[in-house]
Amino acid sequence: MKKVGNQTYRIENPVTILETACIVGPKESGGPLAKDFDKCVEDEFYGESSWEKAESRFIKDTVDTVISKSGIPSSKIDACYAGDLLNQCISSSFGLRELNIPFFGIFGACSTFVESLILGSIGVDGNFFENVLCAASSHFCSAEKQFRFPLELGNQRPPTAQWTVTGSGACILSKSGSGPYITHITPGKIVDMGIKDANSMGAAMAPAAIDTIITHFKDTGRSPNYYDGIFTGDLGYIGKEIVIEMTKSKGYNLKNNYNDCGVLIFDKEKQDTHSGGSGCACCASVFSGHLFKKLKDKKLKRILLIATGALTNSTTSQQGESIPGIAHAVSIEI
Amino acid sequence: MKKVGNQTYRIENPVTILETACIVGPKESGGPLAKDFDKCVEDEFYGESSWEKAESRFIKDTVDTVISKSGIPSSKIDACYAGDLLNQCISSSFGLRELNIPFFGIFGACSTFVESLILGSIGVDGNFFENVLCAASSHFCSAEKQFRFPLELGNQRPPTAQWTVTGSGACILSKSGSGPYITHITPGKIVDMGIKDANSMGAAMAPAAIDTIITHFKDTGRSPNYYDGIFTGDLGYIGKEIVIEMTKSKGYNLKNNYNDCGVLIFDKEKQDTHSGGSGCACCASVFSGHLFKKLKDKKLKRILLIATGALTNSTTSQQGESIPGIAHAVSIEI
Repeated sequence: MKKVGNQTYRIENPVTILETACIVGPKESGGPLAKDFDKCVEDEFYGESSWEKAESRFIKDTVDTVISKSGIPSSKIDACYAGDLLNQCISSSFGLRELNIPFFGIFGACSTFVESLILGSIGVDGNFFENVLCAASSHFCSAEKQFRFPLELGNQRPPTAQWTVTGSGACILSKSGSGPYITHITPGKIVDMGIKDANSMGAAMAPAAIDTIITHFKDTGRSPNYYDGIFTGDLGYIGKEIVIEMTKSKGYNLKNNYNDCGVLIFDKEKQDTHSGGSGCACCASVFSGHLFKKLKDKKLKRILLIATGALTNSTTSQQGESIPGIAHAVSIEI
Repeated sequence: MKKVGNQTYRIENPVTILETACIVGPKESGGPLAKDFDKCVEDEFYGESSWEKAESRFIKDTVDTVISKSGIPSSKIDACYAGDLLNQCISSSFGLRELNIPFFGIFGACSTFVESLILGSIGVDGNFFENVLCAASSHFCSAEKQFRFPLELGNQRPPTAQWTVTGSGACILSKSGSGPYITHITPGKIVDMGIKDANSMGAAMAPAAIDTIITHFKDTGRSPNYYDGIFTGDLGYIGKEIVIEMTKSKGYNLKNNYNDCGVLIFDKEKQDTHSGGSGCACCASVFSGHLFKKLKDKKLKRILLIATGALTNSTTSQQGESIPGIAHAVSIEI
């Protein structure tokens, strides 16, 4: 490892993303990326009796799938880093309680997946672990129930609202392997620009994304053109526009090669998700399904993946607080 | 770093615990360890308008205190690992949003403090970071409101219930320094023995503690006598007894040098806390206040600190789920 600039670290013995898996729900299965997912589940309940149990099953089955695809026995996986959006991260802890692998629960809201990649890379590059498992999940119904209103109320959603992705993405990072490699990590700081609208998360999280993206470019000396693709996790249409405009005003032109996983996962015309997808599983499933395949096929050779999280809950909203955001970035290259 | 046994890692360039700080609430200020805390706050609200904002202020002021005591400018602290018990870890993210240090939110329930020490040690030993900040908080009133009943209801608490510690503990880990050192880490697995009583957390978490303690002894070849003191985080009186009995049945005698931070922090006779203290701040404040002082004074030279967490919430309890536990351990030596 070598520190680069203020806040970025170059992984000297690049960490291989050995394998990925993702399982998604019915809405995602009707979207443009459906063919890239390992499994599309047609039942929001996934055969369980509650939304929370369904979400736990999504992460459990996704993790079982990635372990099975990797061919690495779970006894050779040294640690698991996982988290989700539910109170006390119960999707991960219940879904993964039979895993029998040392477990680090993490919470970065929708930035959780990239947070897990960063912490996992530190553990592998730091010579602690041979193989680690990184995973995150979210569920539209459990998230609506917990953060906004139970679906049964039939509340209207404003145009700035995003649609929480139902599903899970997971990957195995390894000391040995032939890539794609995690080559740089830029962990983010908490950024709070005072936005208070819990139905406009893209706007609330965009300042953190901008901070981390610009920090990454300054630290590495790279320009946006260095990457074949730059992807934020779940800023949606509104957040994406803010990122393009604000980075442009700072001298970085992202227009040619930047997109957002929340924009990619749903069809704007046919699937009425308003401002696009969100949730831990948005970045996790789009990366683990879509982007990882493109990296393996060498259609993408260098990407910057930035997941953003809104570090808020319904209590803080009700108490009149603003919404702090955070964004973590990793460079992935072949 | 060197892997020792299955699940333990020896830190080859030992990580120094450079400085600690802790601030506690009124109940803790009336307990036997009061003189060891940096600040005892007489107002449960800490001058704020809600329990959640009060808890955020506890962690904010504690982190400010440890940075100030350490003499290290915050610009030289490379990362912060923090978490708490509140939904979406809002105490940490709101309390630390002005910190301007790359932030990793973690969730290990009451095991959070030791989880932060483990992840922080990996970051420092792995040569990523020079200095990192680890912190955790909890608050009796916000925890009762969120996990059980609002205090205004005046509910009775059963004798197995524990009292969530109000306060926060924080420390700075550094590559340079003359100890006390973190010398071994044993991250834990999720263990669920099927206990469902949300008012008997000590019993629910004890199996995870036993699993991690015995794993640590097997991995290192050490016996309980190696340590001057073995401390669990917040098992309280009931969990402590279970640990002593169950480890004895496996051939490990902990009777002479084992205690629990939840037993130490309150006076059993004078302070009616039933089964003792609990919460992220229990282990965090007893370590950062009491145990760290004893290590600095060489009254303790080798300790094993094991923090336990119940990975549950009120939704899972209401859905009839059992309570998965986890326990993370670190050896600290001078």
